[in-house]
Amino acid sequence: MRILGIDPGSIVCGYGVVETINKKITLIEYGVVEAKKQHSELPRRLEAIFNRIGSVIDRSLPDETAIESVFFAKNAQSLAKLSHARAAGMLAATLKQLPVNEYSAKEVKRAVTGNGNASKEQVQFMVKTMLGIEETPDFFDATDALAVAICHALKSNTPRSRAKSWKQFVEQNPDKISRK
Amino acid sequence: MRILGIDPGSIVCGYGVVETINKKITLIEYGVVEAKKQHSELPRRLEAIFNRIGSVIDRSLPDETAIESVFFAKNAQSLAKLSHARAAGMLAATLKQLPVNEYSAKEVKRAVTGNGNASKEQVQFMVKTMLGIEETPDFFDATDALAVAICHALKSNTPRSRAKSWKQFVEQNPDKISRK
Repeated sequence: MRILGIDPGSIVCGYGVVETINKKITLIEYGVVEAKKQHSELPRRLEAIFNRIGSVIDRSLPDETAIESVFFAKNAQSLAKLSHARAAGMLAATLKQLPVNEYSAKEVKRAVTGNGNASKEQVQFMVKTMLGIEETPDFFDATDALAVAICHALKSNTPRSRAKSWKQFVEQNPDKISRK
Repeated sequence: MRILGIDPGSIVCGYGVVETINKKITLIEYGVVEAKKQHSELPRRLEAIFNRIGSVIDRSLPDETAIESVFFAKNAQSLAKLSHARAAGMLAATLKQLPVNEYSAKEVKRAVTGNGNASKEQVQFMVKTMLGIEETPDFFDATDALAVAICHALKSNTPRSRAKSWKQFVEQNPDKISRK
């Protein structure tokens, strides 16, 4: 399965594609859209993000996307801008019929480093190690995007234990059974 | 000039197109996208908004768009969702090469009713009166979208007084001149 991870931002938006085969995760590509450098106005920045994510999907052909959920930011204006950028990435994916999976920053950090409060440097170090990236990318946004993709890869690789029989289900879910 | 007004929302998103000829503003069309009714997941709601705004542009052929700026909401989650919906409308317009003009709710209310703190009912009454709409639309979002379009029409109709000479500029802008 190929997964496109998106780290949304209206100034810099990161993206990264990984592939999972037999629990091994490999890098396909990663990069950033320097949206603010290209355009000062928000609508044009969103267009830049939308178009780039669309191109990445067209060439790397991911099966699914994963994106960080954002409901907090340092202030209301940051949250609003971040949400606009996030919508642009989300739309690029959903218009190409790709499922969009959302993970909180904490979930991503925990999945990649084992610590939900890991620093950006720790996340970057783990992403580089896991994917064998030798260079240090200019932007944390790129490795953060790969981290979201890895998070989804790991969560999808963990098979949920499914009950094989009604008896087993009852044993596994005592709280769901009414004994009246 | 034809103007598409958008009142963004991830539950209900309003839109309305007006035409201005010789300072007279007439209605072309208006409506709402009941995004949440169609889909529970956010990406699909954004897709519904994006597609509908795109269709409205294709059939009504506006020259410009006007959208309410949102940097405040009752809570962070509402602001984030509103911003996602706003980005979907903005992207639909900008990808079709339409300029996007932003107005605050206060500016819109002041332009349409003369009072920046007017109620939704007052805005709706004025929009209906100005455009000769006899029915009362089911959603305020539709008349709010028309209000943004009217606001842009009125602002675009007011020619900014431009100085014709340096002397006139100095007379009109005494505060911009350093007398040192």
